[in-house]
Amino acid sequence: MFTRRSFIKSSALITAGSLINPVSMFAQNDKIARLGGSKRMQLTFRPFDAQLIHPFTVSGYTRTTTPIVLTEIAYDGITGYGEAAMPPYLGESQASVIAFLQKVNLQQFKNPFELDDILAYVDQIAINNTAAKASVDIALHDLVGKLIGQPWHAIWGYTAAKAPVTTFTIGIDTEDVIRQKTKEAAPYKILKVKLGESEIADKMIITTVRSVTDKPIRVDANQGWKDKHYALKMIEWLSDRNVEFVEQPLPKYDLDDMAWLTEQSPLPTIADESCQRLEDIPRLKGVFDGINIKLMKCTGMREANKMISMGETFGMKLMIGCMTETSCAISAAAQLAPKMDYADLDGNLLIANDCFSGMKIIDGKITLNDRSGIGVKPLNI
Amino acid sequence: MFTRRSFIKSSALITAGSLINPVSMFAQNDKIARLGGSKRMQLTFRPFDAQLIHPFTVSGYTRTTTPIVLTEIAYDGITGYGEAAMPPYLGESQASVIAFLQKVNLQQFKNPFELDDILAYVDQIAINNTAAKASVDIALHDLVGKLIGQPWHAIWGYTAAKAPVTTFTIGIDTEDVIRQKTKEAAPYKILKVKLGESEIADKMIITTVRSVTDKPIRVDANQGWKDKHYALKMIEWLSDRNVEFVEQPLPKYDLDDMAWLTEQSPLPTIADESCQRLEDIPRLKGVFDGINIKLMKCTGMREANKMISMGETFGMKLMIGCMTETSCAISAAAQLAPKMDYADLDGNLLIANDCFSGMKIIDGKITLNDRSGIGVKPLNI
Repeated sequence: MFTRRSFIKSSALITAGSLINPVSMFAQNDKIARLGGSKRMQLTFRPFDAQLIHPFTVSGYTRTTTPIVLTEIAYDGITGYGEAAMPPYLGESQASVIAFLQKVNLQQFKNPFELDDILAYVDQIAINNTAAKASVDIALHDLVGKLIGQPWHAIWGYTAAKAPVTTFTIGIDTEDVIRQKTKEAAPYKILKVKLGESEIADKMIITTVRSVTDKPIRVDANQGWKDKHYALKMIEWLSDRNVEFVEQPLPKYDLDDMAWLTEQSPLPTIADESCQRLEDIPRLKGVFDGINIKLMKCTGMREANKMISMGETFGMKLMIGCMTETSCAISAAAQLAPKMDYADLDGNLLIANDCFSGMKIIDGKITLNDRSGIGVKPLNI
Repeated sequence: MFTRRSFIKSSALITAGSLINPVSMFAQNDKIARLGGSKRMQLTFRPFDAQLIHPFTVSGYTRTTTPIVLTEIAYDGITGYGEAAMPPYLGESQASVIAFLQKVNLQQFKNPFELDDILAYVDQIAINNTAAKASVDIALHDLVGKLIGQPWHAIWGYTAAKAPVTTFTIGIDTEDVIRQKTKEAAPYKILKVKLGESEIADKMIITTVRSVTDKPIRVDANQGWKDKHYALKMIEWLSDRNVEFVEQPLPKYDLDDMAWLTEQSPLPTIADESCQRLEDIPRLKGVFDGINIKLMKCTGMREANKMISMGETFGMKLMIGCMTETSCAISAAAQLAPKMDYADLDGNLLIANDCFSGMKIIDGKITLNDRSGIGVKPLNI
């Protein structure tokens, strides 16, 4: 049976735009051969399963792989690399991303520098699909950065040396596994600890981490605390245990309760699920102390950079986060790291089959390289 | 008598940073000669009086020149050009700009690409001084664009062909002069007409323009209408006369009255004096329909580009404006023009001794060139 899924799995390379602008692959290749590199952008993509080093648990889910789609945009002999990462709770899949990318016709644009129009076009193809959109945005930024001959942190005017340390994430797990993971996290200066289970489980996790190390902890409750009074009680308990802030303590739409909690809380609060895109930020002013920006939520690097500017204008703390991603999307996010108060860019450290090399964590700190674009090289896996 | 002003007038070139980091001009020149171009940024500046083709009147002022300070930042054998333009009602002068620029020590920065930190440093040297700050911002953008090898409209990802037509400004004047200026404005497709005088004078001006042409008019009242009911009556009168919008009808701090007026007005309203910098925009949402961004108000190109993003997010109309400026600052502003709904970039057309060539108005439309940076060449005047 040749289902849509088996088609996706068996196809090594899929050309975008073929649904709306059918062209024979051979005809395209002939043209490329003649011109020595097409002067139109060619978007291609393929599914990739990221293998997790440890099974990963957040409130309600455990998994051993993260589905990814890798993208490439070729233009004039240069290739830009991109990626969509789809943890299942976000509603996208390899099939949905590929269905989206098949609708993307970049050949209508003559000039890859016209990012504003190109990405506005991509955004209006369908609602949501933010990871799919990010996979185009990242590949296009990589391409344009290479055409310019500069890394994006330089094009944006940021000071690479200011990139902060990254946290390393400890997922929800048994006492033994948490103790083991905390020991493995020795190279990292700050831990991100996932909570949002029962009070007993949450306190066991923190107590277990604290039995191994007293390094600073940042807590992510992933909307897991269902009541503002309970959340405040938990935050007060955490504030005596060298916890720096709490991310998304309450369900994402409970903004009135969240404003009350931020007002009462002894620790700063950071919006994650409540803050998807640029347009969400104005309503979060005074509701959270800061925002967690992720490329897979906000459609990519261009919108993420605008979110920095708006968050900064509103005096909010800025954090960059990630999904489980290869060094491709992580290196793209790292271009924004110099502007961040907090960073959680450990997604590539959690997978066993990373197919890119890019930004490095050196002594716990995000360390950008000088390569053009997003600063990655593909590895042969 | 050798006053501060005569010192300024007589000195062809002044080196910045000399107050906090005194160095002999000769020693610096020796160093440049030895290295074949300094690897530190050198900021220099000189006063320049822009001669107006016509004396210029807005509510309460008439003048024949505009004081300007021209800046240059040299680095590694490349020069970036910038400019501060100081119409007297904004509170800056050649003396205040030069006093500010003498405090700017760019030699502390090794990497001109680090625009974010450099311009944050410039901004915190003193409050206000927005034109002085813009003169550093523009020269630095020109330098970095040249180092990158791209014009800023391309670096920002904008589509040059989308730059709109510009208005040509008709100032407050006698009936004869207004008729004459309206005839001279024949090459321009839209007129910007200054009002804000008495009802009789304002209606005379519009009626006189309309006796020559029926092309669209955009009105700028420059805070001249002192009462919201009167302003509404004037806007209703204008709305029958092919007027597209009204800029700043009420005093800049009357935001409650302004919100009422925008709600009632048959024409869109645009904030000018009420909208100086990025931080002003959130409070203008729902108060005006759009904002007029000017480099000399907002400290330059970097903040102006952030204002575009915030204004767009809030669904506000975007306009780019100018002072009486040479083609240097006008060409810098023109880099942002592709994102604008409305443009009023005629400042260079109003002066007789323009000392740069840059963006051109072709068939009424702002036409960007492909030169790196802000796209200007100095002329020998």
